[in-house]
Amino acid sequence: MDAINPRFHKKTAAAVKPDELVAELRQGSRAALSRALTLVESRLPAHRILAEAVVEKALPYSGHSLRIGITGVPGVGKSTFIESFGAYVTEAHQKRLAVLAIDPSSARSRGSILGDKTRMEKLAQNERAFIRPSPAAGSLGGTARKTRESILLCEAAGYDLVLVETVGVGQSETAVKSMVDFFMLLMLATAGDELQGIKRGIMEMADLLVINKADDPEDRAVRLAIGEYKRALHLFPPKENEWIPEVKAASGLQGTGLEAVWETLARFENQQRIKGYLSENRAQQAEQWLAQSFEQLLLEEVEAKSAFQEGYAQLKQEVRAGKKAPGRAARELVRLFAQSVAAPA
Amino acid sequence: MDAINPRFHKKTAAAVKPDELVAELRQGSRAALSRALTLVESRLPAHRILAEAVVEKALPYSGHSLRIGITGVPGVGKSTFIESFGAYVTEAHQKRLAVLAIDPSSARSRGSILGDKTRMEKLAQNERAFIRPSPAAGSLGGTARKTRESILLCEAAGYDLVLVETVGVGQSETAVKSMVDFFMLLMLATAGDELQGIKRGIMEMADLLVINKADDPEDRAVRLAIGEYKRALHLFPPKENEWIPEVKAASGLQGTGLEAVWETLARFENQQRIKGYLSENRAQQAEQWLAQSFEQLLLEEVEAKSAFQEGYAQLKQEVRAGKKAPGRAARELVRLFAQSVAAPA
Repeated sequence: MDAINPRFHKKTAAAVKPDELVAELRQGSRAALSRALTLVESRLPAHRILAEAVVEKALPYSGHSLRIGITGVPGVGKSTFIESFGAYVTEAHQKRLAVLAIDPSSARSRGSILGDKTRMEKLAQNERAFIRPSPAAGSLGGTARKTRESILLCEAAGYDLVLVETVGVGQSETAVKSMVDFFMLLMLATAGDELQGIKRGIMEMADLLVINKADDPEDRAVRLAIGEYKRALHLFPPKENEWIPEVKAASGLQGTGLEAVWETLARFENQQRIKGYLSENRAQQAEQWLAQSFEQLLLEEVEAKSAFQEGYAQLKQEVRAGKKAPGRAARELVRLFAQSVAAPA
Repeated sequence: MDAINPRFHKKTAAAVKPDELVAELRQGSRAALSRALTLVESRLPAHRILAEAVVEKALPYSGHSLRIGITGVPGVGKSTFIESFGAYVTEAHQKRLAVLAIDPSSARSRGSILGDKTRMEKLAQNERAFIRPSPAAGSLGGTARKTRESILLCEAAGYDLVLVETVGVGQSETAVKSMVDFFMLLMLATAGDELQGIKRGIMEMADLLVINKADDPEDRAVRLAIGEYKRALHLFPPKENEWIPEVKAASGLQGTGLEAVWETLARFENQQRIKGYLSENRAQQAEQWLAQSFEQLLLEEVEAKSAFQEGYAQLKQEVRAGKKAPGRAARELVRLFAQSVAAPA
């Protein structure tokens, strides 16, 4: 595992001043935003500290966007939909849009890095849009942390909409749900196969189902699918935020149905801000994020301390040999850990 | 949540001397074994320390049994099978058998406590058998720790076979697999429905599939099922311990097929001891157990420190209000944690 992000030079890191970087990105410098995001993605401990300082400086200017999660099985046309939707909101509504991807699998396959280059070509050249390819991150936990910090940075840089796209299949949806205001699920109108491998739990999280590739919204299959999905959504318990999930048809390729999607988003944001659910949801998310970061950081600290590691190796041997019971050895380990974390590194 | 186990009196706890308790249970006192197990199941911190001392004392006398996990969907006839199998091994082979149950769900339903009373009535009266109803434990992690310590205690008490039965459905199988030498899966011969809701991953863990309720082993459905399961097992990658999983037919109700099950167990134990896999597997399990206990204990310590809790509450408020970024707050929290763990309670 390489700890250094190849896109980030050591020289640059040493020269970074959080204040200045945040000031630059607030003035609309895409280069500054990119640099800040790269810092946030780095695994080097020194970069981590610096990244936290940058995020802390950006925090007061964050919070003004609508944070949107978007997911769907491969083949549903996510990239094309985002490209069309991005063109629509930046042109028709003069909104600034940032697209982030969350992909816990990319560390393994490295596939998405290449893939990202050829995806959303038009949107990448749009002045009001900013696309960040998913970092080649390790764990889902690490990826989630990076994405959350990236959302804040994009907001400080003045983006009105932040789209978080799941590239990974499965687990990442829950992570995305825990960092956005609105969760959008793309589906196909393939009659008969109504769930398309989408798990019940993921459908339950959705605030909006978009039937994509619905080139003709009056098509019988599309209308049937809309009815079916509406009934399916109706069976879930009501959401705490009083929002009733909707179903819309659209076509990323033809650029149709985007207005209805936008209208739903705008209505959601308005309603949720007025009722106070938007801020309450974000406060809860921040609290969860703190708890998760704490646990993760605690375990990272453990790995970084050599005195602790030596003690751990010793106890492991004793436990393996059956000379010491694991429960008791664990208690010794906790003491040792506290001593090493309390001591200077 | 009540921290005190109702079956364990405070007086008794104060009077417990780990040396004496272990000496008594080694001499065959069922009352001493029960007391030791109750201690291990208690959630009171003082009991926890005492329990660890007892386990530590018992450790040198443990390790001599064969540890067997047994699972199967509800309705497969697990209790009846265990009752019959217990009668067979205690009589035909003069073995001493302990039965432990792992049930992460019992804290919720409280169902298993009542249920256990009426289950395995004959085995409960068998001099060579010892049945421990599952404790009303909370988390799966806590339950796993208790069960592991209970296995060691039963071994120190001289039981030759320790059967760990999963009562919960789903997750608990993986936990059981991580604490036994041999994993047995009970199935039915219902043709057509060959997987019976048993997930692939659970079948893959099995060292032996027992087709239960096979009152007539020459029955066509039974023979078909044996063939099908053998083919299914054959598709999994070979096990590291070189053991080739087997399929046997038995009837808990009729008491047939138990000899074949026993013969498989004996052959497995013999082969694995000679090849060294049995001890290597246990060493690895102990190592994992240490790592899990450490993480759990670390988080328990967190909850117990009031200075830490106050600091946590304060940071939580700041994070909720968007005044501090969760990542940075988490870092402060780690320092605070180290200080409070290092300080005397």
